[in-house]
Amino acid sequence: MPKLYWEDFKSGAVAEYGPRLVTRDEVVSFAAEFDPQPMHLDEEAARGTMLGGLAGSGWHTCCLTMRMIADGFILNSSSMGGPGIEEVKWLAPMRPDSKLTVRATVLETRASKSRPDMGLVKFVFETLDDKGTLVMSMTTSLMFGRSPPEKSAA
Amino acid sequence: MPKLYWEDFKSGAVAEYGPRLVTRDEVVSFAAEFDPQPMHLDEEAARGTMLGGLAGSGWHTCCLTMRMIADGFILNSSSMGGPGIEEVKWLAPMRPDSKLTVRATVLETRASKSRPDMGLVKFVFETLDDKGTLVMSMTTSLMFGRSPPEKSAA
Repeated sequence: MPKLYWEDFKSGAVAEYGPRLVTRDEVVSFAAEFDPQPMHLDEEAARGTMLGGLAGSGWHTCCLTMRMIADGFILNSSSMGGPGIEEVKWLAPMRPDSKLTVRATVLETRASKSRPDMGLVKFVFETLDDKGTLVMSMTTSLMFGRSPPEKSAA
Repeated sequence: MPKLYWEDFKSGAVAEYGPRLVTRDEVVSFAAEFDPQPMHLDEEAARGTMLGGLAGSGWHTCCLTMRMIADGFILNSSSMGGPGIEEVKWLAPMRPDSKLTVRATVLETRASKSRPDMGLVKFVFETLDDKGTLVMSMTTSLMFGRSPPEKSAA
């Protein structure tokens, strides 16, 4: 697979990555480490909340989404990381034993004004479970190195 | 410590939480699991990047910040979770062996229109390292249960 540079991302392009199964043990151990609220740790405690049953931390969904897009295309690209996140919406509970996928849509691309070797690509990443429920939507810009100039034939 | 309800959060209030030491092993193992880009895994690979040396995944900074605010006040509150994240800015590299703290500022509070038992509190969480460098800024609204009515004296 040829390495992806900034020039390879086109506005409107859509791709899917994953799937990634997330187990109950993973949900609980992530929560115990980073977000130990009862609704992410304990079925009984979660039942009485807005989540209506055990659900993963929204941060866990972010991290699993990151891993799916890393394996999906970032590790095969000239990625230079990202300056931050423009928006995350947690739209539905991420249930244990879900199989997650990510639908990545390129919203726009722009060259960097300050760095001629770099460009930005703005994505929306939509994370769905295996029932087709949209669990999370994340809008973010990533930085990519630009394609190296063609080698001279001389 | 009395439990915190929505009414207890006041616009302009500032509090600090942490510290939390993050080790090199933690940085690398988080990255290996969720964000295996070379600049988060390997000192040598990181040196040639914009980060100028090994630095944690921005998602790791988010998760450590979540844990500090959970321990700091959320677990002692009527938290009902959050609908998402309004903005995250990764402003400086999160270095291994940093001691992180969070400065939490209440930007605004508002009652829920649809749920009289709930209110929202909009925060900016600023994550600093032990040199005082602002590593990350996160703006987000959290949902809290409202204070129960005073018991009748009858």
